[in-house]
Amino acid sequence: MHIKTVLTESEIPKQWYNLAADLPTPLQPPLGPDGNPITPEMLAPVFPMNLIEQEVSQERWIDIPEEILDILYKWRPTPLHRARALEAYLATPARIYYKNESVSPPGSHKPNTAVAQAWYNKKFGIKKITTETGAGQWGSALAFACSIVGLECKVYMVRISFDQKPYRKTMMQTWGATCIASPSEETKAGRDILAKMPDTPGSLGIAISEAIEEAVSDPKGETRYSLGSVLNHVLMHQTVIGLEAKKQLEKAGEKKVDIVVGCAGGGSNFAGLAFPFVNDKINGANIEIIPVEPSSCPTMTRAPFSYDHGDTAKMTPLLPMYSLGHDFIPPPIHAGGLRYHGMAPLVSQGIVEGLLAPRALHQVECYQAALTFARTEGIICAPETSHAIATVIQEAKKAKEEGKEKVILFNMSGHGLLDLTGYQNFLAGKLKDYPLPEAEMQQSLKGLENLPKPKTQKTGKW
Amino acid sequence: MHIKTVLTESEIPKQWYNLAADLPTPLQPPLGPDGNPITPEMLAPVFPMNLIEQEVSQERWIDIPEEILDILYKWRPTPLHRARALEAYLATPARIYYKNESVSPPGSHKPNTAVAQAWYNKKFGIKKITTETGAGQWGSALAFACSIVGLECKVYMVRISFDQKPYRKTMMQTWGATCIASPSEETKAGRDILAKMPDTPGSLGIAISEAIEEAVSDPKGETRYSLGSVLNHVLMHQTVIGLEAKKQLEKAGEKKVDIVVGCAGGGSNFAGLAFPFVNDKINGANIEIIPVEPSSCPTMTRAPFSYDHGDTAKMTPLLPMYSLGHDFIPPPIHAGGLRYHGMAPLVSQGIVEGLLAPRALHQVECYQAALTFARTEGIICAPETSHAIATVIQEAKKAKEEGKEKVILFNMSGHGLLDLTGYQNFLAGKLKDYPLPEAEMQQSLKGLENLPKPKTQKTGKW
Repeated sequence: MHIKTVLTESEIPKQWYNLAADLPTPLQPPLGPDGNPITPEMLAPVFPMNLIEQEVSQERWIDIPEEILDILYKWRPTPLHRARALEAYLATPARIYYKNESVSPPGSHKPNTAVAQAWYNKKFGIKKITTETGAGQWGSALAFACSIVGLECKVYMVRISFDQKPYRKTMMQTWGATCIASPSEETKAGRDILAKMPDTPGSLGIAISEAIEEAVSDPKGETRYSLGSVLNHVLMHQTVIGLEAKKQLEKAGEKKVDIVVGCAGGGSNFAGLAFPFVNDKINGANIEIIPVEPSSCPTMTRAPFSYDHGDTAKMTPLLPMYSLGHDFIPPPIHAGGLRYHGMAPLVSQGIVEGLLAPRALHQVECYQAALTFARTEGIICAPETSHAIATVIQEAKKAKEEGKEKVILFNMSGHGLLDLTGYQNFLAGKLKDYPLPEAEMQQSLKGLENLPKPKTQKTGKW
Repeated sequence: MHIKTVLTESEIPKQWYNLAADLPTPLQPPLGPDGNPITPEMLAPVFPMNLIEQEVSQERWIDIPEEILDILYKWRPTPLHRARALEAYLATPARIYYKNESVSPPGSHKPNTAVAQAWYNKKFGIKKITTETGAGQWGSALAFACSIVGLECKVYMVRISFDQKPYRKTMMQTWGATCIASPSEETKAGRDILAKMPDTPGSLGIAISEAIEEAVSDPKGETRYSLGSVLNHVLMHQTVIGLEAKKQLEKAGEKKVDIVVGCAGGGSNFAGLAFPFVNDKINGANIEIIPVEPSSCPTMTRAPFSYDHGDTAKMTPLLPMYSLGHDFIPPPIHAGGLRYHGMAPLVSQGIVEGLLAPRALHQVECYQAALTFARTEGIICAPETSHAIATVIQEAKKAKEEGKEKVILFNMSGHGLLDLTGYQNFLAGKLKDYPLPEAEMQQSLKGLENLPKPKTQKTGKW
């Protein structure tokens, strides 16, 4: 009667899995403003070269340095739980498992890459990292990582979140980071925006611009920028989740997984769990792999596959991805981590190739699922994670209708203890959905009109 | 190089340890208003009989029912960490270990007893549990436990915390509990207070009175009251912490522990870690065992050992304990869980017998220690836990001065992610200490004047 499967120190994965090595069609390169592929050297002012090498690597397995393992081991391997109480509540024949990434000190999966990125920057001689944060989960994780590795950390936090979530700022400061509201007076990008719109609530796009500007304009060249999702190396750092899960399912006596689910904003927590199973699927396994997004920010389910900028200010290279357009302003849903106009290139290509089956949900259904999960399994999940849980409940009910003993696995990407406002509104009956009108989306998609289109097409194999 | 020691499912303790069986002098009984010992039957309207039996048990080991283990296993065994980064920062020859109880879904050690109490109530046929909560940690833990076991839960939360900490209330509601501000209109005790003091911020004493009143006045007799600390059975339920720690230290290659530290409000997290080591000390081991309290609420270090009521309204029996008097109103320090006028009878008698060496600290030193811990070990601890960490730092520095390789163990009783206001104030330089003037304490001690004195005296053996 396994309800939790743990691994010992020696069973922690020693290598990251790089899906880029196994994609049926090679990943399309990032492009510069001239439409030509970006070279590693062009990224050097923004990222340290050791991470750029990972970003473009075609190696299937990349060794995790001992020093990084040593830090990950503070909370890894994370437990794999069997959700028996949820199964009983749903009276489903499905067996539901979840990886519990909420046990990390910052409370989510984010430190898996934050620690790796901080360590590689430090090794490269960098003294300071800048980044942006929306809801605050990524900023907290990077502050934690920099504190442990010994780096300065500066976080540009979107103004509206900075004001609404003072505790996230306190977390970052407790770990020694500087956290300021964006737009700020500290960068040209920030000052320009403030001159035009002194009362702007800010946006992730502006905050990215400020963080990159500060990194590239350090006269000593000792500052770099760090991103918490979307990029290849960030997704790769998260694959420890799925690699552990595979070992744990085996220990739990499961020979096969039928359905793998993760919520997807930029794509990193989904990829972390799913990519090792995508590898199985490429090699012939019959698995349904589902990234879930909010219906009000329907990147994967309604937007085209295109080249687009990662930020509103168009400072980043063009990336091949499903995108609602870099001008897209998502509605104020509580899942701040899922409010992003694009989707990681690796996840995007997985969708194009037919390896992944994306789905979109509205937040009220997700909060109802989160409540069910809290009252059965006992964990209060992050608003982002609730999208995965709602999908799992849909699939468990379907398994019941079909009378099939399916094995379902999902990623409990983080706890919601710093995001309880959404629960408060839901319990008070005040939460609402934000359907995205077609006209509004088409308006935003105009931002893609003159941008190149990637060549990858559906292989028809999956 | 052990930095974390984990146990598997099969290594979870299967029995609780009951220190009452091993105390050199038998524990003094609780007394009724007439000065005569309380009988188990007299407690029956308040607690279910199966827990009353545990409360008065003299058995050394009590089996943990399988069904309780099954719930505890959601997060237990908890990891034992070696605090290598803190050791390096302090340049101490001491080896510092901590049990990480913050990985439970409510984020503290409290669910260890909440789950057990909810389960025994359910088994006894009870439908609803009432309790009080101050800072909200206990209320959250009981709400979590009742949700899993399937019981109604009603929490009377001290008005000032109810208003200041809306997120704690949301946590409890998410787990299906009812949480109302105390004093309330729902009980006679509450209405009486509100009539006299409509603007009172409330107190733990008042909240206890309301919770007990609701329990004992259920006409169907299906409601009972639950306490999160102080009582014998509550402390016993926490001993899984220390029992696991002993196995883990052995796995980590440690043959002997020199110093054991825990913060102490009512005494349950301290007892949970320390009592299995107190047993070793009774049997001849040379261990210094330190409960730590706030200097502004100096129960163990400045108050007398006396009989006293557990609540301000004198509804509870008289318990033999170190007490500042049931009228004592502690200053507004951030460690809400350590603001209690008394101390668990089992911990109190351990002090009288010389088995424990209590210590008191002011909060600014504790927050400094918490910051050091967050920036070395990476965990943001609860304000209560910071008292243990500050003591460990004192002892690690002493070991350095003495050049001794001491082994120090403490309980990381909970995380501080829902109590970040204290960190905010500390980082802003606004935090202050609250020394307790002797005259003020003497005034409060007058409440003990006409109460009986327990017979237990120091044996002189330790």
